[in-house]
Amino acid sequence: MADSTHLMFDHPDGEPVLVLQEEQSWKLLEHTSHGRLVVSPGGRVEIFPFNFAVQDRTLVMRTGPGNKLAGMAIDENVVVEADGILEDQAWSVVLRGRAHRVETEADLARAEELQLKPWVPTVKDFYVRIVPEEVSGRHFVFGEHPEPEH
Amino acid sequence: MADSTHLMFDHPDGEPVLVLQEEQSWKLLEHTSHGRLVVSPGGRVEIFPFNFAVQDRTLVMRTGPGNKLAGMAIDENVVVEADGILEDQAWSVVLRGRAHRVETEADLARAEELQLKPWVPTVKDFYVRIVPEEVSGRHFVFGEHPEPEH
Repeated sequence: MADSTHLMFDHPDGEPVLVLQEEQSWKLLEHTSHGRLVVSPGGRVEIFPFNFAVQDRTLVMRTGPGNKLAGMAIDENVVVEADGILEDQAWSVVLRGRAHRVETEADLARAEELQLKPWVPTVKDFYVRIVPEEVSGRHFVFGEHPEPEH
Repeated sequence: MADSTHLMFDHPDGEPVLVLQEEQSWKLLEHTSHGRLVVSPGGRVEIFPFNFAVQDRTLVMRTGPGNKLAGMAIDENVVVEADGILEDQAWSVVLRGRAHRVETEADLARAEELQLKPWVPTVKDFYVRIVPEEVSGRHFVFGEHPEPEH
């Protein structure tokens, strides 16, 4: 979980939800190492927990052959969510982008610098780079709930 | 995060990934209070962190008017993911089901027993019950990664 204590989340007028600036969203992603990857090959939503690293405003992941890689091959459009949920507050960042396998030697060398370790060891694996198209984030301060009106 | 230390995850032959029994997946959901809700109105994937409670093998959530509720009204098919990610292991449970607003008085009374508090206080809110169609889970033990073959 990201240590978000160094980030200022200044909610105007005690509003419970703060829409984050893109800069703040990237800071949170940079300080996080895992999230969830949503792929939707053929319209069927699949969601996987995964670990990633941020590199030059892209996300890099490493994965073996399997559903994640197959899903991204069928539909490169992916959504990534990362969050940090504490007792009294939470943040969530959602990134939409396109995933592609890292294939050129130069790009592979760049990805390897990150020293990413996938969760599941496999002999043959691939680097995937997710190029963002949209990044958004929200920060929540939990509060007392007024009595409902029914 | 669920305290998963009381659950046995017995990986046969040191396999890094264990496919969970449905019973194990429900236990994890019961000991978790937050996850991510994926809705896909009109084919566009939206993902929200949210809190829930398990009741008689359904998930119950409470939400104000907004994108989550609107998304589920357009397409009741939802996917929920919950996970717990530690230094050396992780689990993830994915539930597919249908979401519907809790509307009858009896069902509302049942949902209110859970004393759910939504993250964002609002005067008017709704209970939503997600009836599962499929629940699956996996447990990962992280290991050393063999050198890649390229």
